Amino acid sequence: MPDNIFPLDSAKSFEDQEKLGHNRWHPEIPPVATVKPGDTFRVDCREWFDGAIVNDDSAEDILNAPLLTVHKLSGPFAVEGAQPGDLLIVDILDVGPIPQEDSGPLAGQGWGYTGIFSRNNGGGFLTDQFPDAYKAIWDFNGQIATSRHVPEVRFEGLIHPGLMGTAPSAELLAKWNKREGDLIATDPNRVPPLALPPEAEHAVLGGLDRGEWQRVGSEAARTAPPRENGGNQDIKNLSKGTRVFYPVFVDGANLSMGDLHFSQGDGEITFCGAIEMGGFMDLHVDLIKGGMETYGVKENAIFMPGRVDPRFSEWIAFSGTSVTLDGEQRYLDSHLSYQRACLHAIDYLVKFGYSPEQAYLLLGAAPIEGRLSGVVDIPNSCSTVYIPTAIFDFDVRPSASGPHQVDPGIGAPKAANA
Amino acid sequence: MPDNIFPLDSAKSFEDQEKLGHNRWHPEIPPVATVKPGDTFRVDCREWFDGAIVNDDSAEDILNAPLLTVHKLSGPFAVEGAQPGDLLIVDILDVGPIPQEDSGPLAGQGWGYTGIFSRNNGGGFLTDQFPDAYKAIWDFNGQIATSRHVPEVRFEGLIHPGLMGTAPSAELLAKWNKREGDLIATDPNRVPPLALPPEAEHAVLGGLDRGEWQRVGSEAARTAPPRENGGNQDIKNLSKGTRVFYPVFVDGANLSMGDLHFSQGDGEITFCGAIEMGGFMDLHVDLIKGGMETYGVKENAIFMPGRVDPRFSEWIAFSGTSVTLDGEQRYLDSHLSYQRACLHAIDYLVKFGYSPEQAYLLLGAAPIEGRLSGVVDIPNSCSTVYIPTAIFDFDVRPSASGPHQVDPGIGAPKAANA
Amino acid sequence: MPDNIFPLDSAKSFEDQEKLGHNRWHPEIPPVATVKPGDTFRVDCREWFDGAIVNDDSAEDILNAPLLTVHKLSGPFAVEGAQPGDLLIVDILDVGPIPQEDSGPLAGQGWGYTGIFSRNNGGGFLTDQFPDAYKAIWDFNGQIATSRHVPEVRFEGLIHPGLMGTAPSAELLAKWNKREGDLIATDPNRVPPLALPPEAEHAVLGGLDRGEWQRVGSEAARTAPPRENGGNQDIKNLSKGTRVFYPVFVDGANLSMGDLHFSQGDGEITFCGAIEMGGFMDLHVDLIKGGMETYGVKENAIFMPGRVDPRFSEWIAFSGTSVTLDGEQRYLDSHLSYQRACLHAIDYLVKFGYSPEQAYLLLGAAPIEGRLSGVVDIPNSCSTVYIPTAIFDFDVRPSASGPHQVDPGIGAPKAANA
Amino acid sequence: MPDNIFPLDSAKSFEDQEKLGHNRWHPEIPPVATVKPGDTFRVDCREWFDGAIVNDDSAEDILNAPLLTVHKLSGPFAVEGAQPGDLLIVDILDVGPIPQEDSGPLAGQGWGYTGIFSRNNGGGFLTDQFPDAYKAIWDFNGQIATSRHVPEVRFEGLIHPGLMGTAPSAELLAKWNKREGDLIATDPNRVPPLALPPEAEHAVLGGLDRGEWQRVGSEAARTAPPRENGGNQDIKNLSKGTRVFYPVFVDGANLSMGDLHFSQGDGEITFCGAIEMGGFMDLHVDLIKGGMETYGVKENAIFMPGRVDPRFSEWIAFSGTSVTLDGEQRYLDSHLSYQRACLHAIDYLVKFGYSPEQAYLLLGAAPIEGRLSGVVDIPNSCSTVYIPTAIFDFDVRPSASGPHQVDPGIGAPKAANA
Ligand SMILES: [Zn+2]
Ligand SMILES: [Zn+2]
Ligand SMILES: [Zn+2]
Ligand SMILES: [Zn+2]
Ligand SMILES: [Zn+2]
Ligand SMILES: [Zn+2]
Ligand SMILES: [Zn+2]
Ligand SMILES: [Zn+2]
Repeated sequence: MPDNIFPLDSAKSFEDQEKLGHNRWHPEIPPVATVKPGDTFRVDCREWFDGAIVNDDSAEDILNAPLLTVHKLSGPFAVEGAQPGDLLIVDILDVGPIPQEDSGPLAGQGWGYTGIFSRNNGGGFLTDQFPDAYKAIWDFNGQIATSRHVPEVRFEGLIHPGLMGTAPSAELLAKWNKREGDLIATDPNRVPPLALPPEAEHAVLGGLDRGEWQRVGSEAARTAPPRENGGNQDIKNLSKGTRVFYPVFVDGANLSMGDLHFSQGDGEITFCGAIEMGGFMDLHVDLIKGGMETYGVKENAIFMPGRVDPRFSEWIAFSGTSVTLDGEQRYLDSHLSYQRACLHAIDYLVKFGYSPEQAYLLLGAAPIEGRLSGVVDIPNSCSTVYIPTAIFDFDVRPSASGPHQVDPGIGAPKAANA
Repeated sequence: MPDNIFPLDSAKSFEDQEKLGHNRWHPEIPPVATVKPGDTFRVDCREWFDGAIVNDDSAEDILNAPLLTVHKLSGPFAVEGAQPGDLLIVDILDVGPIPQEDSGPLAGQGWGYTGIFSRNNGGGFLTDQFPDAYKAIWDFNGQIATSRHVPEVRFEGLIHPGLMGTAPSAELLAKWNKREGDLIATDPNRVPPLALPPEAEHAVLGGLDRGEWQRVGSEAARTAPPRENGGNQDIKNLSKGTRVFYPVFVDGANLSMGDLHFSQGDGEITFCGAIEMGGFMDLHVDLIKGGMETYGVKENAIFMPGRVDPRFSEWIAFSGTSVTLDGEQRYLDSHLSYQRACLHAIDYLVKFGYSPEQAYLLLGAAPIEGRLSGVVDIPNSCSTVYIPTAIFDFDVRPSASGPHQVDPGIGAPKAANA
Repeated sequence: MPDNIFPLDSAKSFEDQEKLGHNRWHPEIPPVATVKPGDTFRVDCREWFDGAIVNDDSAEDILNAPLLTVHKLSGPFAVEGAQPGDLLIVDILDVGPIPQEDSGPLAGQGWGYTGIFSRNNGGGFLTDQFPDAYKAIWDFNGQIATSRHVPEVRFEGLIHPGLMGTAPSAELLAKWNKREGDLIATDPNRVPPLALPPEAEHAVLGGLDRGEWQRVGSEAARTAPPRENGGNQDIKNLSKGTRVFYPVFVDGANLSMGDLHFSQGDGEITFCGAIEMGGFMDLHVDLIKGGMETYGVKENAIFMPGRVDPRFSEWIAFSGTSVTLDGEQRYLDSHLSYQRACLHAIDYLVKFGYSPEQAYLLLGAAPIEGRLSGVVDIPNSCSTVYIPTAIFDFDVRPSASGPHQVDPGIGAPKAANA
Repeated sequence: MPDNIFPLDSAKSFEDQEKLGHNRWHPEIPPVATVKPGDTFRVDCREWFDGAIVNDDSAEDILNAPLLTVHKLSGPFAVEGAQPGDLLIVDILDVGPIPQEDSGPLAGQGWGYTGIFSRNNGGGFLTDQFPDAYKAIWDFNGQIATSRHVPEVRFEGLIHPGLMGTAPSAELLAKWNKREGDLIATDPNRVPPLALPPEAEHAVLGGLDRGEWQRVGSEAARTAPPRENGGNQDIKNLSKGTRVFYPVFVDGANLSMGDLHFSQGDGEITFCGAIEMGGFMDLHVDLIKGGMETYGVKENAIFMPGRVDPRFSEWIAFSGTSVTLDGEQRYLDSHLSYQRACLHAIDYLVKFGYSPEQAYLLLGAAPIEGRLSGVVDIPNSCSTVYIPTAIFDFDVRPSASGPHQVDPGIGAPKAANA
């Protein structure tokens, strides 16, 4: 294995490690290590809640998940010679759960979790239909995931980092804070909130001088959304073998990563929506000097997915349009049409004996494809969701003989909103 | 070939054929033919503008495209024994351009077209950035498409019907008219409009008694949007070998189809966005009696894509988030984030020498994948667009040596808004 | 469709057509047409037995199949400017059964056949185990094949020409006759024979002056084997979208083709082993001048398979080693180890209720993969055969619950050796 | 990670480990551990020469490779309840190089090797053309392999065990010795030999009482060939996610494995032909009681390959027929036709600047496909070899502009036969 430049001890909390990472974006967080273009190195990553979610049959931990503390990021790592305007090449040579540890209390030690957040604690894509908290624990066997909470499915993980990105410049950070603050101001008391403002109390800022944490923490960006620097993109296809090109906004680029997923469906629809875990990444970095101008990149990452994703050849697919459940016609709303497509898939799976929340958890965790199929046919956009039929232990196709009945087992643990 | 139950003569207009199709949805349009469950049959399909778009180097025809007349549909075809509540199984055994005719004035005779509609005539996904009309003609060589208007690309078509669906019941039609009318009423003079209301003058209603055309035409639904009956879904993956399950709303199901595409990218983003053509479909139908209840289907089609799509293994992908070009933060807007992803792809391709409209036309026509990658990370949704690298005659990947320069040739014909 | 430069009338025999093809290889057979580099054209192809095999439930026609008359080839087609030493580029733009004819007495009219030749009439790969003649008729539905003689399977055809190649020079032809004659001479009375010598009586030599047929026919090469010019390679992967590079041995290259297959497994193991049919090919040709030297090609074709083959993701595979059924150890004999792998697959399928000959016919016709897995591990080579599980209507995987039992139906028709 | 029931210390030789494996097949070798049906466990595996091949630029070690000592196998592992006649299910949950060790003197510590054996020491598939010894060292970066000895290629490894199998019964072992001895007796002094007889001096027999080693070693089977028990099949597709069904010949099944490969082309053509390495396997076992009879299995393994192999979509392919380089016609010899196909591929690659031995080493190591394309077209079989174009850093397709010229660098180290 390559040199591990950010080792984590599974027996210690994120803040008690030899090297301290961070959970906010800010240009003043100093690099925890420096690498050269052409270097290969390993980085350990802690699961995003640092052990708050446990391997049991209750969803109380999901109900009370400490969202102010996320994401636990490894880095930043400076790349020698990187300057604003460059493209940083990041090759994901490998990514996986915590090596050599297949049991233990920490997600990534042979298991991971998917949660449906309650509406009062972040919510999810279908929070109107699923206002309470639910959890599913997934066991890893090689690259295969199974769950006692979602029976009769098994699938190869599409392992990837949910979050990776470069540090913002001060100007870029100011822009984020302005535009997100403006959005919050339109409905400041909304539940769930429209966006998450800076928050100093739970900020962890790596090697930054402690005397600066209050000031920097009160302006550092929360890590929930993806932004110009990549960040929490939750693109399931950033799997082993992927090459990403990130824009560079500060000297050294200051790359960070975390939020590893054993698998995820397109959209990460339950919010805590992938199979969350800690683990490791083996990375190779390089630079295209001046690449942002050369390739027309201002504010986004470019990537080329790897070649070793699980290979499926048959899917059952569901479409949705931009009409609300109440029958209201919305104008070309692809977010809504994907919600409707997912609800149609859930309606279907329920006929096989799954509870609605089991079906929802499955769509969040399995390698489903979510596509923007039609975006111009006024007034309805058309989104589609594709489920590989091979993930089911039974024949999931419609037929004259009717649906197989799954034994729902102990079901998905639930914790109701107070 | 199977029996052709809806033949079209390429030398005659849609309305002068032996059997008359339709261009509106209405339960009173009588079946043009009746088939049995288990039957296999062929249907010819006319291109959606019935020949108004020609194979030349001008975009005047796109500027003035007759949107009131679309889509030219084949059918309806009644299926014996089909009743409301059933699922209609439709197997797409084959679909292709007009057989045995590889040259001529009609799209489908060895060629097809992609258009960018002007803002004053429908617009498109990126109409703010591309307010004028543009056109690209694509030549077919076997399953390969190339264009004199978009040089140095060649790709295997992903041939499919943009539109297929069952007839609505009177109740369902009333629901459509109500909800779409309500939407239009919120901004009745918008350009482009929010939705398209019934319009009797250009309605074509098949074998319906002419005396009824005015009444029925004034309540029949326009075919632009996809709806509960399937319809203009523009799902590029409905290719050869696909099985679709449609809900049945009227006795006989009354299946219709048209809007054939030689290829299309996810979203059909230029509106006239696929490679439009006429051609044929070979279909096999069957029924799952009572299948809507059995499989939890109320208002959507289910489908299983075929196995013979073009196979790619390398893509270059671009992400976008829900921040407008003006920098305004929107809340989890996947429509916007896909627009931004497509604009990022265009910015990139322009660096290789394509004009922005050439790049836009290419994204509409080539088998690109559009994915809803992240839909919960407040406030930014993350959409991604994947372009297969193999469709380019050159190496399209970013590298230290910089982008290859395409010879843009004669470019894409343009016709400006008046 | 492209210009058809070799049309065939399904109602007439191969020798009564407007243009006469050939069934032997000889440099003196004159071109039936001439094309230019860059040209696209259509060619009809007659099934290899010219209608001798019929769509019924008897195998008498297979027992008496007229091997002296094959293959019925379309061509030769001269390419302007082609000279010995060039590489001829042939793009297979399309290939399929007889267009617009889906019923009729000729294979290719909506159906095709697979035969097991009897040992006394050619034999096959497993002739010691299957000395009698058998037949299976396959029906085409779009790209799907099914058979009343091999129940409970259905698969997408991998349509391709079994035979395509350039004309040999006189020198090359002499070399063939010498080396094959030498082989025959080692065991001239063997049944089945070791090779097939020239035979003038049934030779068809296109536009060659009739006065020359006896002389030329007595030296022209039979078309059974693949040779330096390509020829009867029976490579299932030469499907739509394939580009082939043939060596050129005579001025004009003189390309011919035929022996179309709706599908075939690797090896074409039953000899008449694919799903045989007539049909059409759309071709595009070009030249690499001097390409044989430039690319090190002396005596073989190079090819790049197309992108639209049926896509499978799960297979059940069987291995074999080079030990005979009698237990004799052979030295690294990959032919034998593939026989043993196929026999293992047959033993397995028989447990599901198929007759051995049904299983054998299926392996010949379905898109199975045959691989040379190990060729150096003395004394045993290891060959493997992979069957896609998706071609079966039932679950074909081994499990604790034991094999599903197929209803063998009417079985595969048999005609015993006299 | 699962419990490691066969740990190996990289600093110690195979024979000095805590648990001793074996390098011969014999029913009397006692199990080194016992597992239950349903168990998951890890096993370390030593590279087949136990460190004799080193990471340098000389091929002297390949010239003198100690063939009498191979293969170093882990096991045997008994499975509780397994009895002759059962099928043993083995799931390959994971397989990879030595975990957490990416540098060091042992193959598997971040690197592996491919060798061409000299004719006097085993030879290879093309030993007549390549009589001397050559070596290539491959470096691992995540799942990517590159070599300083074979420049301008890089590919994802298709990691698999070359060897896995169950113990033979005494009867089966006697059968092997008889038939292989009979073969050797036909030409006992052949170089390279026809087969490898039992040899007691270098036999390692695990936990068998030392007093028995001479007797048992003199009848135990060498591990070079694959046989009824699986064994050294060198099937490149036994990668992560594969399920294998082995016949059981002795109580407990007594499963053993080793000979790990980071990658291999079909055939493992250079003999030491894959990228050889040590590493680990994570396995899950289960039983189908009486499965041999139920599924018609007498003497072979059945397997279902995994879903996460590297995915390619474009290949350049070469065919070969059963005519020797000297022009002699052989009868349907697929071994020969695959040799000729490989030689054609080498002739082609040489035109790009590779030395013949670099090309040969590449074909052995990269994930090439070797297919039995035609096996019945007397007198020529047709074999084909497919090279994925994406493994090259340059465009490897034939074109009018001629081949790119590779910088062959230091070349592949050579050691000539004395
Ligand atoms: Zn995330
Ligand atoms: Zn996450
Ligand atoms: Zn459409
Ligand atoms: Zn359309
Ligand atoms: Zn053939
Ligand atoms: Zn044939
Ligand atoms: Zn081996
Ligand atoms: Zn090996």
